[in-house]
Amino acid sequence: MKIVVPFKRNNAKSRLAGILTPDERDALAMNMLRDVMDALDGFEVDILTSSILSNKDVDFSSCVLLSGSGLNEALNEYLDSQAGHDNDSVMIVMADLPLISSKHIREIAGLDADVVIAPGKGGGTNILYIKDPSGFHVDYYGASFLDHLRIARESGASVEVYDSFAVSTDIDEPDDLVELLMHGDGEAARMLTDSGFDVAVRDGRVGINRNRV
Amino acid sequence: MKIVVPFKRNNAKSRLAGILTPDERDALAMNMLRDVMDALDGFEVDILTSSILSNKDVDFSSCVLLSGSGLNEALNEYLDSQAGHDNDSVMIVMADLPLISSKHIREIAGLDADVVIAPGKGGGTNILYIKDPSGFHVDYYGASFLDHLRIARESGASVEVYDSFAVSTDIDEPDDLVELLMHGDGEAARMLTDSGFDVAVRDGRVGINRNRV
Repeated sequence: MKIVVPFKRNNAKSRLAGILTPDERDALAMNMLRDVMDALDGFEVDILTSSILSNKDVDFSSCVLLSGSGLNEALNEYLDSQAGHDNDSVMIVMADLPLISSKHIREIAGLDADVVIAPGKGGGTNILYIKDPSGFHVDYYGASFLDHLRIARESGASVEVYDSFAVSTDIDEPDDLVELLMHGDGEAARMLTDSGFDVAVRDGRVGINRNRV
Repeated sequence: MKIVVPFKRNNAKSRLAGILTPDERDALAMNMLRDVMDALDGFEVDILTSSILSNKDVDFSSCVLLSGSGLNEALNEYLDSQAGHDNDSVMIVMADLPLISSKHIREIAGLDADVVIAPGKGGGTNILYIKDPSGFHVDYYGASFLDHLRIARESGASVEVYDSFAVSTDIDEPDDLVELLMHGDGEAARMLTDSGFDVAVRDGRVGINRNRV
């Protein structure tokens, strides 16, 4: 199995611009990538990125530099490049899943189905495992969970949906930081705490609060 | 094991008032309760409510009428009433979890820990399993996940967090209906579809759309 992690560093996590500076957003994206790479420790991982990453930033087996094509085009090229190899299954893991652990990866890879989809909240696909990439293409953005279900079924593949709150939690918006602060124990959660963020309850609703540090 | 489901019918799901009429909100709440009761089929279930429910509305073993006390007070009285019985473990299941199935309930009840917490998104507690209710009290509202973790640890109980996207999905806000439409296959999802709702993608973001029916 090859694992591929698409990673966007330039202007990363733009929907957090209201509460994090550009440098903080960059650091959060890097820390989430580190947490994801920790969960992938022991597996063969390619990072797919158009940014320059060094092994000082994060520990990876191989970094595939993109020539500016979009996420879907890059991943579909990657799937094509893997098709036909021995043991050519591919797992696509998003880089903004700081709550995942190696247990999730092992469980997903151990399922019997030809395609395993771990949904993100709001219709997304957070982890996608494809036993035979030759008959598959990805379609991220929008309601990709439904798109990937359809693509798998049209290709005759059996599909399993992997049910995990941790895997469903991608970090895009301020409210998502609540989940990271509450349930995270890695670099990204530590960075938020060190930056003065904590969980605050106002009028019975849970949000985040920032203290001076 | 006794399962208890707190259920609020009067002005249910008020945060959906912008997109559902009062009658529709009432029907959605009832359909979600039916979906939850389907998942609990075969277990002994008490519904804890201040509303009048008949067995025509939903199939339950016993309905405990509340005298207007709050959720925490009512549940803590319930826990007290169960403490000391044989096999007196209690599972508290929220009524707005239309994606749960009996598999979740069996898995949670089969875990070794003294207390099992299945988090809701945004810091909530969606299912709480308590092996020995005599040493425990609940504290819902706000960041109840953290509160229940603390209460369990203070009482010396071992705690396990149950990781499920389906269980984490409680239906409170318009965006939550996306999850119900995408991942649901019960009465509540059917009611939404029959009412003309579907998933719509605008500017790459997934939301809901309502068509005339």
